[in-house]
Amino acid sequence: MSTTRLLEYDQAPPEVRAVYDAIKAAGGLPDVNNFWKALAVHPPTLSRTWESLSRVMAAGALDPLVKEMLYLAVSVAQGCDYCIASRTAAARAKGMTDVQYGELLAVVGMASETNRLAQAMRVPVHLRFED
Amino acid sequence: MSTTRLLEYDQAPPEVRAVYDAIKAAGGLPDVNNFWKALAVHPPTLSRTWESLSRVMAAGALDPLVKEMLYLAVSVAQGCDYCIASRTAAARAKGMTDVQYGELLAVVGMASETNRLAQAMRVPVHLRFED
Amino acid sequence: MSTTRLLEYDQAPPEVRAVYDAIKAAGGLPDVNNFWKALAVHPPTLSRTWESLSRVMAAGALDPLVKEMLYLAVSVAQGCDYCIASRTAAARAKGMTDVQYGELLAVVGMASETNRLAQAMRVPVHLRFED
Amino acid sequence: MSTTRLLEYDQAPPEVRAVYDAIKAAGGLPDVNNFWKALAVHPPTLSRTWESLSRVMAAGALDPLVKEMLYLAVSVAQGCDYCIASRTAAARAKGMTDVQYGELLAVVGMASETNRLAQAMRVPVHLRFED
Amino acid sequence: MSTTRLLEYDQAPPEVRAVYDAIKAAGGLPDVNNFWKALAVHPPTLSRTWESLSRVMAAGALDPLVKEMLYLAVSVAQGCDYCIASRTAAARAKGMTDVQYGELLAVVGMASETNRLAQAMRVPVHLRFED
Amino acid sequence: MSTTRLLEYDQAPPEVRAVYDAIKAAGGLPDVNNFWKALAVHPPTLSRTWESLSRVMAAGALDPLVKEMLYLAVSVAQGCDYCIASRTAAARAKGMTDVQYGELLAVVGMASETNRLAQAMRVPVHLRFED
Repeated sequence: MSTTRLLEYDQAPPEVRAVYDAIKAAGGLPDVNNFWKALAVHPPTLSRTWESLSRVMAAGALDPLVKEMLYLAVSVAQGCDYCIASRTAAARAKGMTDVQYGELLAVVGMASETNRLAQAMRVPVHLRFED
Repeated sequence: MSTTRLLEYDQAPPEVRAVYDAIKAAGGLPDVNNFWKALAVHPPTLSRTWESLSRVMAAGALDPLVKEMLYLAVSVAQGCDYCIASRTAAARAKGMTDVQYGELLAVVGMASETNRLAQAMRVPVHLRFED
Repeated sequence: MSTTRLLEYDQAPPEVRAVYDAIKAAGGLPDVNNFWKALAVHPPTLSRTWESLSRVMAAGALDPLVKEMLYLAVSVAQGCDYCIASRTAAARAKGMTDVQYGELLAVVGMASETNRLAQAMRVPVHLRFED
Repeated sequence: MSTTRLLEYDQAPPEVRAVYDAIKAAGGLPDVNNFWKALAVHPPTLSRTWESLSRVMAAGALDPLVKEMLYLAVSVAQGCDYCIASRTAAARAKGMTDVQYGELLAVVGMASETNRLAQAMRVPVHLRFED
Repeated sequence: MSTTRLLEYDQAPPEVRAVYDAIKAAGGLPDVNNFWKALAVHPPTLSRTWESLSRVMAAGALDPLVKEMLYLAVSVAQGCDYCIASRTAAARAKGMTDVQYGELLAVVGMASETNRLAQAMRVPVHLRFED
Repeated sequence: MSTTRLLEYDQAPPEVRAVYDAIKAAGGLPDVNNFWKALAVHPPTLSRTWESLSRVMAAGALDPLVKEMLYLAVSVAQGCDYCIASRTAAARAKGMTDVQYGELLAVVGMASETNRLAQAMRVPVHLRFED
């Protein structure tokens, strides 16, 4: 069970409902995810997180699917199970194919391996990168 | 200093030189990075890692720059300083602009924040993701 | 299921019962948590961990609730689900309000975000901190 | 060296200067830290991060020193060297004594130890926490 | 539920069946673990991972049980629940006793604690290690 | 620079000197490492950490070199640079050969890779492990 109750729309105060409405409108969704219902325990953090997230994930110089895949890669590397579930679903909804997913897995896995090898051996950063 | 000496080409045995040659040929480089010179302490791991990495980062369903950015995102999330330095340079060499880099930073930062919030609140994965 | 059986008081040898008794006495509890019942697989680690933990969490220069919140913050940053559950409950038992909890979440989230940004950009530590 | 140049005030565009001015005014500082000078590579992330951080660290239900210590604890658990340096300095500037610092270290260390023990043994969350 | 379906032998294409056959033959097992059934979403990653893993875990200069315990220690430090479950079972199958397991837990726990203490205090590496 | 001064023997109070003496006697060393000199900022944590560490690393059911290698593996997985340097040196002093070191690197690297793959795919723990 979560560490705080999940606040449903019907029971939410106006400031929380306003954020829920914005989230639902942005995604064309009938309801908001559990993440938001839990975060409603602290309305200032709920509204600030939503504002930041919507700005960061908006269309920009990077393709929306690329942003989702970067988000997923970080969530895997940090071991956030909820985020892995929700971001994989989101990436698939944006068109990620099985082959693209497989390549993402391969890159995340290899990066994890070489990260630890480089750290283990205390490899000095080449002067070329220090110019 | 690294935990093992960096093996230069001139001092390397044939099996190590063969891997160095392959790395240099693949990248059109005059020398290999310190990561490989350190990994030469164990030739089987040197050759296996290079084989895996070259297969994983080869052209595929994902754009090479996207693969580099995913690699960089994981390296940041795992705190590998050497990898961050080398992968940022590699991503720039493949054309990553300052704006793309800024958006990558923003996504990595936000994902790190929401990862911890979701873990902190023990948010249950929505049934929708469990279908 | 846990990787080792949970050892109940009735089945425990005297050296384990002695630790269970100390834990129950310290907290005024009718039983010990699962963490201790699992750790009983190795009595020396059980007793050493309890001794260390009770000394570290005892009244000192920091308020007991502050210690609980620091413990919780670390548990979130390391992704320990059991610890998050038990430490959130303990912090609430020591008086943590919803607003305090919300602010803790906000600080943990922001720290996670700026940690990754600082690592990603390899920001040099300012000379001022090196004096 | 950082992965992006550190943008000094004199060379910064107006939108960046405005953030630098706000940071300096808030802290009564003659200059901003390297973190902000690096983050100026992407002005939207610079301004959003500053806005969020200043809101999160503002006076609230938690004491400002407690917030600094929570920030430091997370930075240690995530291994961000720059953040550890800057947040330890900030906590000391807000009055953290050597004894308080020692107790913070002790709690962070013990939490790290028990986190790994609980994860290693896959300890089931007690029903009591699930009510 | 997993993010991809678990591919059973009967439904698998020949290239996947060949890897499943190799895994079953190596371990003398009637079936492969869920990890492989999930990884079959991307056959090139399935075969490459199996090849690498079987080479790395093969008899060598380190005892097979020592390799399993190192694998388990890393899995704990990275918080991979599935890997902790499967590697603890594998270590026990290779003869790990309760006392050995208890000592492994103790080392993993202490290392986690001193890791964070050393990082928190930014302890400079002694010149002796830099020779 | 470290976040606290390194306390030399000559300037240390009796309770700190007693711990330094015990560490030097245990290792047959002329001086203690920087880790202990920094931890002397908080004498109770210095003495408790030394007591725990010496008990954990003492001869037992696991070979002392195996304990060092487990310690090193955890330090790599948690990215503690100081600990990696000191534990690699300690393992070599206990007889770790280049081939053993290479196999340790290979296991740590592979475990890191499969850890992230298993987490990414949310692989369900097989019922067999749940018996």
